Parts: sequence; C-alpha cells; structure tokens
Amino acid sequence: MVMVPYTLEGSYVLHQMFRVRWAAWKALDPESRATVIAEAAACLGEMPTGRTALFSTLGHKGDLMFLHFRDSLAELNQAELKLAKLDLTAYLEPTSSYTSIVELGLYESTARIKKLLADKEFKPGSEEWIALENEELGRQRIAMAPRLHSTIPDAPYLCFYPMDRKRDEDKNWYMVPWEERQRLMHEHMMVGRKYAGIVKQIITGSIGFDDWEWGVDLFAEDPVQFKKLIYEMRFDEVSAVYALFGQFYISVRTPFEDLGKLLN
Amino acid sequence: MVMVPYTLEGSYVLHQMFRVRWAAWKALDPESRATVIAEAAACLGEMPTGRTALFSTLGHKGDLMFLHFRDSLAELNQAELKLAKLDLTAYLEPTSSYTSIVELGLYESTARIKKLLADKEFKPGSEEWIALENEELGRQRIAMAPRLHSTIPDAPYLCFYPMDRKRDEDKNWYMVPWEERQRLMHEHMMVGRKYAGIVKQIITGSIGFDDWEWGVDLFAEDPVQFKKLIYEMRFDEVSAVYALFGQFYISVRTPFEDLGKLLN
Amino acid sequence: MVMVPYTLEGSYVLHQMFRVRWAAWKALDPESRATVIAEAAACLGEMPTGRTALFSTLGHKGDLMFLHFRDSLAELNQAELKLAKLDLTAYLEPTSSYTSIVELGLYESTARIKKLLADKEFKPGSEEWIALENEELGRQRIAMAPRLHSTIPDAPYLCFYPMDRKRDEDKNWYMVPWEERQRLMHEHMMVGRKYAGIVKQIITGSIGFDDWEWGVDLFAEDPVQFKKLIYEMRFDEVSAVYALFGQFYISVRTPFEDLGKLLN
Amino acid sequence: MVMVPYTLEGSYVLHQMFRVRWAAWKALDPESRATVIAEAAACLGEMPTGRTALFSTLGHKGDLMFLHFRDSLAELNQAELKLAKLDLTAYLEPTSSYTSIVELGLYESTARIKKLLADKEFKPGSEEWIALENEELGRQRIAMAPRLHSTIPDAPYLCFYPMDRKRDEDKNWYMVPWEERQRLMHEHMMVGRKYAGIVKQIITGSIGFDDWEWGVDLFAEDPVQFKKLIYEMRFDEVSAVYALFGQFYISVRTPFEDLGKLLN
Amino acid sequence: MVMVPYTLEGSYVLHQMFRVRWAAWKALDPESRATVIAEAAACLGEMPTGRTALFSTLGHKGDLMFLHFRDSLAELNQAELKLAKLDLTAYLEPTSSYTSIVELGLYESTARIKKLLADKEFKPGSEEWIALENEELGRQRIAMAPRLHSTIPDAPYLCFYPMDRKRDEDKNWYMVPWEERQRLMHEHMMVGRKYAGIVKQIITGSIGFDDWEWGVDLFAEDPVQFKKLIYEMRFDEVSAVYALFGQFYISVRTPFEDLGKLLN
Repeated sequence: MVMVPYTLEGSYVLHQMFRVRWAAWKALDPESRATVIAEAAACLGEMPTGRTALFSTLGHKGDLMFLHFRDSLAELNQAELKLAKLDLTAYLEPTSSYTSIVELGLYESTARIKKLLADKEFKPGSEEWIALENEELGRQRIAMAPRLHSTIPDAPYLCFYPMDRKRDEDKNWYMVPWEERQRLMHEHMMVGRKYAGIVKQIITGSIGFDDWEWGVDLFAEDPVQFKKLIYEMRFDEVSAVYALFGQFYISVRTPFEDLGKLLN
Repeated sequence: MVMVPYTLEGSYVLHQMFRVRWAAWKALDPESRATVIAEAAACLGEMPTGRTALFSTLGHKGDLMFLHFRDSLAELNQAELKLAKLDLTAYLEPTSSYTSIVELGLYESTARIKKLLADKEFKPGSEEWIALENEELGRQRIAMAPRLHSTIPDAPYLCFYPMDRKRDEDKNWYMVPWEERQRLMHEHMMVGRKYAGIVKQIITGSIGFDDWEWGVDLFAEDPVQFKKLIYEMRFDEVSAVYALFGQFYISVRTPFEDLGKLLN
Repeated sequence: MVMVPYTLEGSYVLHQMFRVRWAAWKALDPESRATVIAEAAACLGEMPTGRTALFSTLGHKGDLMFLHFRDSLAELNQAELKLAKLDLTAYLEPTSSYTSIVELGLYESTARIKKLLADKEFKPGSEEWIALENEELGRQRIAMAPRLHSTIPDAPYLCFYPMDRKRDEDKNWYMVPWEERQRLMHEHMMVGRKYAGIVKQIITGSIGFDDWEWGVDLFAEDPVQFKKLIYEMRFDEVSAVYALFGQFYISVRTPFEDLGKLLN
Repeated sequence: MVMVPYTLEGSYVLHQMFRVRWAAWKALDPESRATVIAEAAACLGEMPTGRTALFSTLGHKGDLMFLHFRDSLAELNQAELKLAKLDLTAYLEPTSSYTSIVELGLYESTARIKKLLADKEFKPGSEEWIALENEELGRQRIAMAPRLHSTIPDAPYLCFYPMDRKRDEDKNWYMVPWEERQRLMHEHMMVGRKYAGIVKQIITGSIGFDDWEWGVDLFAEDPVQFKKLIYEMRFDEVSAVYALFGQFYISVRTPFEDLGKLLN
Repeated sequence: MVMVPYTLEGSYVLHQMFRVRWAAWKALDPESRATVIAEAAACLGEMPTGRTALFSTLGHKGDLMFLHFRDSLAELNQAELKLAKLDLTAYLEPTSSYTSIVELGLYESTARIKKLLADKEFKPGSEEWIALENEELGRQRIAMAPRLHSTIPDAPYLCFYPMDRKRDEDKNWYMVPWEERQRLMHEHMMVGRKYAGIVKQIITGSIGFDDWEWGVDLFAEDPVQFKKLIYEMRFDEVSAVYALFGQFYISVRTPFEDLGKLLN
C-alpha cells in the first residue's frame, strides 16, 4: 500500500496582491486621501498582532500585498471582507491571491510511526491503530505548535511562490516509492538547513484551497539569499526532477504607518 | 470493443463566480445599496428551495459564488438570466463559471449489465439488448434518484474544482483496458469512502458543457478535510497518473439574508 | 507520397460570443433600451433567412452568441460589420469568436478517386489527372450541396467547440499512414451515426482562418445527448489518442423577437 | 560543426491589431467622427506608397489591422507613433501586434557557398572566408532585392500567423543534421510552389523581435486557398513534425478611403 | 555531489513596460500635458546618471519601457515608487515588468576553485574551505566590478527576454553532469564572443525574484544583429536542447528630453 506522509496543519494563510488604481487615486483631493489612509491604517492596526502584514511588491504583478495568518478559514474570510469594506478598496485592483494553511510534512515521523504500527501488528484503520496514530501525532502537534501557529516573521524582504510536485508520464512524484521520496526530501531539507538563520521558510499546503499544491514564503534580511537558496535547491534531485513552480513575488515589508508614504 | 461506462444524469448545475466592483458599489448611497440588496435577496429567496446557494469565496478569483441545481438546462439558463437582470449585476464582474450535470459513473453496474447482455447472447444494439439496458438503467435511476436530484448540502464550506482524465502519449485513460479502469476506479472510491460523513462529494459531468470533463464539489464542516482527502487521493494510481486538475475555489456558505453583511 | 484527403467546402461560418455590459445597459432608460433592441431585432430580421441565429450562452464565457452562415468571407465580414454598427454593440463586449467554413472530409472518396487515378496511370498533376479529379469532386460537390450550403438547424440547444489533431512526439496524426487514418475516421464516424436523428453535427474547417483546425457544432433537442455522444467518442481511438479540444460553449437558441426578453 | 543557414533580410514589418471601442466611438457626434476619420485617412495617405495597408479582421481578435513595411526599425517605430498620435487612437484598443523582418532562408545557397569555402580550404572566420561569404551573399541580396524590399501585395485577403520550429525532447529541429533539414525544407517549398500565382507568401523572421521565430503572411484572391495550402503543408514532414503555430488572423483588405465605411 | 556554479551578483535591475492610456491622455489639454511631461522628465533627470533609461517599445506589449539599475532591492523599489507618484502614471497602464540582478555565472572559475579546494583536501563547509572560497570569489568580484555595477549601455536598440533552462523528463539541465554543463556553456559563450563589439549582453539572474530564471538584455547599433546572434545561438546544443524562452521586447532608446515627443 502506498505511503501518504502525515502532515500537521497550523494557521490558515491568505496572500492578497493588489495594483493601485493610480488614475482614480490621483484624482482624489489630499484630505480625502488622508481619510482613506487613516481608515485603512486603523483597520490594519486592529488586526491580531503579528498576524497581518503589509508589503510593497516589485513590478507590475502588484503594488501592495497583504499577508494574513488566522486560526480558521472563516477568520481568514473575515479579514478579507474587512479590507474589502475599506474605502481604500475602491482604489485597489486585485491581481492575485493565494489561500493555504501552514503545513509540516512529517516524512521522518511517518516512517517511524508506520513502523511502530506495523511492529504492534495493529490492523490498519482499527481502533488501536487510530489511537496510536492520534497519540503520536498529538505529541508532534504540541512540540511543533510554535511553528504551526507563529506570527509573521519581521524580516524586511519576502519571496513568495507556489509549487507542485510533477506528475509527468515518467517522472511522477506520486508514483515514487516511499523510501525514495523520504531520501529525496531529506537531501532537500539538508540544503535548506545550510541557510538556517539566513532565510526563514514557511511552507503552506494548498491542495483543495488553491491552484498549486504548496505555497512557499521565504523571509530574509538580504534578498540575494533567496536567489542563492533557490538556485542551490534547483540542483537537488527532488527539485530538479519533480518541482514545478508558479509565479514569484518579491516584496519589501512596510509598516502599517507607512501606508501613506507608499501611496502619496 | 471498447467498454464505455454507463452514466446516470441528474440535475443540471451552474457555478457562477463574481468579483464585486467595489469602486462603483462604494459610490452608491446607503439607501440605494439597501434597495439593491433587498431586490437580490428577494429574488434568491424565490428560487427553488435548497437548489440555489450563495457563497463567499476566498481570494481574488471571486467575492461571491452562486451555485444552482435545476431540472433542465433551460431552467439553469433562466436562473442565470434572472440574476443578470438584478440591479446587483451592475456591481458584479463575472470571473468564472462552470456548467455541468450531476453524474453517477456506474463502473460496477456496467460490468454486471454487459455480462448479462453477453450471457443472453443479445446482438449489440438489437431491440432486446436496448430493452434490457433500459430496464437495468431505469432500475438504477430510481434507486439513485435522491442522489441524482438532491438539494445543495448545508455544510459551511465548499471546495469546487474541475478535472480531466489525461490523454498523454503513454498515459492515456481512454486507452486503458476496461478491467484496469474498473480496478483503478474502485481503489479511488475506497479512499473517498474513508471520508464518508466528513466530506460529501457531488460529481458532475461536463463533457460537451464546459472546458473540463468533470466538476467536483466537496462539502464539509472542517475545510482541512478537503486537503486531507485530496492529498490522500493524489497517491491513488488513477489520480496520480491520470488526473488533470483545473482551478480550485474555496468558499464559505452564506445565507441569503447575509448578502447585505457581505457587501456593506 | 503522403495522402491528403480531399475536402469539399461550403458556407463560411462565424461564431460571435458577447458578454452584456450590464452596468451600462441598466443605466439606460427603458425607452432607449426599447429603441436599441428594436434596431437590433430589425437588423437581424433582415439577414438571410436561416443563415443567422441568436443564442443565450450559459456561464461567464458570454451572454449572447450570434452564428452566421454566408456564401463568402466578404459577406461574413459584412454581417459582422452590420452588427458592429448597431447601437446594441455599445453594450456588448466581445469575449470570443470563431471563423471557419463548412467542410466535408472525403476519406472514403479520396481512396476511391486516388485508386481510379492510379489505375489509369495518369501522371500526378497532369492535365488528365486534374480533369478527372475535378470531375469526380464536382460530382460530389453537387451531391453534397444541401449539406455544404445548409441553413442553421432549428434545434433548441447548440454545443460548439474547436479541435485539433495532435502532433505530439510519438502520437502525430499527420504522420499516421493513410490506411490507418482512413480506418480510424471510419470507426469515428460509426459512433456519430448511432446518434443520427438525435444530434445533428456540422463540421467546419478553420486551418488558416482561426486558431484550431476544426470547429464542431452539435444541435439537439436534449442537451444531455451532447455529453453522451462526446463521451462515447472520447473512447474512439482517433479521439482518445489524437483529439485536442478547445473551449466548449453550450447555448440555448433564442428567436430574434426574444432579444428584448433576454436583456430586460 | 553545426550548419546555420544563411538568411537575407529586407524590410522591417509591423502588424498592429486593434479592436474598436464601439461605446466611446458611438458616443461621438457625426461631425467629430468625420474629423477623426479624415485625420486618420490623411495620415495613412501620406505614408510611403504600398508600404502601409489597412485590413478589416474577422472575429473578436481585432476589428482593424494595420500592416507596415519599412526600411528600418526606427522608421517602423515612427509609423507606430504617428498612428498613436491620431485622435482615432482614443477609440482603438490594441489587441495584438507582431514585429519582424522580411527574411529569405537560403537553404540551397548555404550548401553551395559552404562547399565553395570548404573546397578553397579557407579557414572558417578568416579574412578570405568572410570576403567570399560577403561576395556571394551580396550577389544574392541584389538578385533578391525585389522580394526583400517589396510593397504589400494588393490581394483582397490576408492570412497572418506566427510559427516556431519545435524543440521537443526527441523532435528538435535545431538538432536535426543539416542534410536532413535541407531535404525537409526542399520538400516543404515544393508544396508552396504548387500554389504559385494563387497564394503569395511573405516570410518574416522575428527571432529577437517578437515571441515566435517567424511570421507568415499569405495573400490571395480566394481565401479558401489559404486552408488548402496550409492543410496540404501540414502533411509535409517538416510541418507535421516540427511546426508549432500561433494565432491565425484572417482579414479583408480595405482601401484607406473606406475607413469611414468600416466605422460608420 | 552535484556541482552548483558560483555566481557573482551586481546591480538589481527592473524593467517596467507600460501602455499609454491614449484616450485619457488625449482628453488632457496641452498645458496640462506639458506640466505632466515636465514633472516626469525632471524626476527621470534626477535619477542616478546612466542607471535609469527610457525606451519606446515596438508593438502592443507596451509603448514605454523604463529600465533601472540600482545597488539594492530597496532602492529599486524606491525608483518604482517615485515613478508611480508622477502624474504621468495616471496615463500609463503597466503591461509587464521584470525584476532581476546582474549575474556572472563562473563556470570556468568554479571548476578551478573546486579543484583547488579538493587538492587542499579541505572538508566541504569547513572554515578553511569557506575562507578560501571567499578569498577566491572576492578577488573575482573586484576584477568583475565594472561589469557587475555598470551603467546602462548607450546603444539605440534594446532586445530583452527572459529564459529558463529546461527541466523536462529526459532533457533536464539540472541533472546534466558538471563537465557536460561546463562544455556546453563554453561552446555557447564562444558564439557570443563572435558578436563582441556588435552586441553587448547583460545577463541578470531572477530565480526567487521573477517568473523565469534569467533575463537577457542585448544592446546594439543595428537591431538585425539581435536576430543573427540569437538565431546562431539557437543551434548551440545548450540553447537548442535546454533553453526555454519567454516574451521578447524590442525597443528604441529615447532620451528623457524626448518623452514629450513620444507622447505628443
């Protein structure tokens, strides 16, 4: 039977990319602009601390990006609706977005737990089997809670992109035997570790939520490190052969109080 | 001769995704907005009970989604035209849609009926052959009527996506021998069954109606179950090798009376 | 030498898909709307009988579709320009279109005529060769005239889609030997024949005219038959292996006098 | 060493496709429209004779197409800027364009000249080598001048499409040995010759200038000949296996003095 | 272990493509236009000398292109925001953009340094290893500083396009052994050298910054040389087999003081 890796889920995440409708915005008189910005900044300021952030995105894919971390999809939807109701929204054009959930893929633990279950000779799907699975995963969930429900890192630069694992005719990730997948993911993780303290990664799962399987958020002090990390990873076998990438968004973190500076 | 599985068809289904034209909507005075919303809510309220639903969609793919189940394509067209004539429509921009029909693919019954026909040594296409086919399918149609002509499930979350079976150079679903297709579909269904009571699936066929072969609607109390179900299925051989997915839409069910809350 | 099947060409065909600009249309007062509709209906009424038709299309791909059959490309261009000059056009946004020509692919006759020419030992391209070709094709053209220059069928539902024959690395229709192509097309046609009297097919060629090689129009009383026909055909070897499909448009026929009902 | 065929370049070419903004145009009063058209017609009339042409394009891809032939890219840019400055431009929406240069691919001559150079045992890249190359190509350039710097043919119909040579994993034009490429191009040209006097072809190169490698313009009295020519060519090995096609634009030539008729 | 080539990074680079909103621009009175242009020209004039340039782009992909070279991503973001705040922006519609960083890929040096490290028998990742790497790369960085932090070349024509190295099932650049990659890149460079003094190339890396892996800017006096260079390179094995190209933008350099001429 095919082995599906256990995953742990944390905060729901929404990326919202907007282009400013400059013609309409510039047509507004300065006081009205100040009112619009004050309302928006106040609304952002009331959002859960460290769980919503504002970015200035490079290029035509968007001028502003909002990033939200929330405990449930309903709360994420509420955050989005709150922004939609701001007067500022009349001057923004949505260009893209991404809906996902913080995800830890437990490749190593899956192997360990499955072995434990097999050793005990529990029948797959039986009560004891499920109880042991839940116990083991519950323990991991507690240990991983800080990563599952973190705030948004403070770094000045953010690189976001979605990705898939390929399902081509010969090279199909979902048909690769478990041991091979585990080995490839381990090698992949080793490259990431070389950048510990330099680039902070948050992986989110988006199967069923958006058009790609995963979203990747990289945070750093020095943006050239995004290029170095991703380029080095591209030579990993799992990335070289099985990774399929979507669009890349590179952004500069902007404090809420600088929203006015961005727009005026 | 190639075996084509029998299918049973039920309600015609239309998904309509809309973005709100916030600039124009915000330019409207509060009384006018109230009138527009009241007209829309009244129109929705008069639609056949449980056969039209309203959703708030996450992200830039749409703000509102309407889902309609109807007995005929003409009635589906009428539902669409009724909404188009609302004053609300002047504030909505269609971003996507999907036209399909509730479909049950009878893999197991096809094998049984074809064997029956073969055993009787009826000539394919002969009167007796067709009579027996009709009798058997008619019996199934009656048994399946509640699923074929259901109302829209009440669950708070909806995940919708269209999909195809691949026709690549080597991996071509439509060239796979019948027994293999039947085996793969059975295995696929077994995964779905593990989620019985957790995720409700409605499969619709859209060959000839829209750009993909099938539409999938998943309904659940807990949206993370969409990810778990689809991720587990992605390791099924039939999905791993032969599934091609379109865009995913994740939405929150909204009662008609909350339309005003969504927009104001 | 590679065998190119003879084709016969008939009417030039244009599909025009439009979305209604509802905001602008709703801003118009009722009398002005009535004038706009009257002008459009009058213009449609003056078009050659049975050679222009109006449809209400399902979903966001278009609200209205016009279908024109004409004797020349210049006349097709004139039909399009006539509609463009209507006041109605200010309220329509073109979403798609398709330009093609009614085409009969003579797979069986090609084999017969080529054999005739070979038997006579005429030199390919010689005067006698061309004369015999012209004589044989002329006879066919007269026999097929009703199909080549037909009016638009009256059925209440229309399914339109464009398609290509694949030219992949291994599976390349244009490299398949003639006898194999002829066998596959025959098998394909046999499926179509099972739907005679249920689904009327008009095949149009669009190489050099539009982005796909062929356009397919299916007309029926019961739209579920589109799905049944195309699904069954998808298991044909020629469709399973070599067909590549574009977007599908499903529409409801609307008499010209109901244009006002569609819009008001 | 890989053989790159010599090419000769002539006029720079720009195709400009525009949709008319009918709503804005119709909102203009008749005198203003007349002024706008008169200004545009005058500007077109002052362009170099036979080197700018106007077309009415079928379908939603564009209403008008301008085609310019010029001696330099700077002049092409000037032609474009001149049109941009017309009042008419406020009523046009660019939908597409294509930038290229008239190109003659010298497959036969390349073989001959390379043999000449080899026979003389000149060192590749040496002064004598280059001198002989220049002499031979210069002679061809003079002989071909009428084709390199022609006016736009007068035919009433134009079919334009861009194309690439495929670089797939196994079927890669740029890895095919020279002799094979030369044989395939010869066979391809033989089909084109059958249409001499019926369809006039102008091939333009666009590597470095636009998104495809070549642009093809076909001119004819009878548009069905475009379909016949391209369909027959599709069975050529070089087209069947290595051709990749972009969008097709089919247009009707319109004298400048009929611009008003097109729009009113 | 897989060999990742060393790279050196220089200036951050932003390409911004805009279409002029001609209808709005033409509706402006001449004095207002003059004021808008004067403000924009003044802003451009104050930008770091030789590090921002203006181009007139051919075709519908854009009317204007701005190219910026800056020392940091934050400065690039500031340049973009400065332009966004001009009144001119109300008359521009962003059609595309590209974010990247000047990059020198050190294929030859990588081989030399890795050999040096291996000869010294330093442990990969050890302090001595890193110290030697840094020393060697630091020396190269100083030697290459003029190319890493150059101004924008003055040539009248610019050809820009993004590209990837393919990761197909069999032909996957990132799985090619180091020696083979080095050989292919050397051969590729040799073609580029034949155009020294004719076409100036600036390669920028964009992994993590934008949707393709590299951006290529070619500068020349004679634009036909872009076609000749890229066509010749297309027959290089590394380009023929492994290059994947995005859209091509061909533009004419325009001095800031001619902005008014472009628009009026």
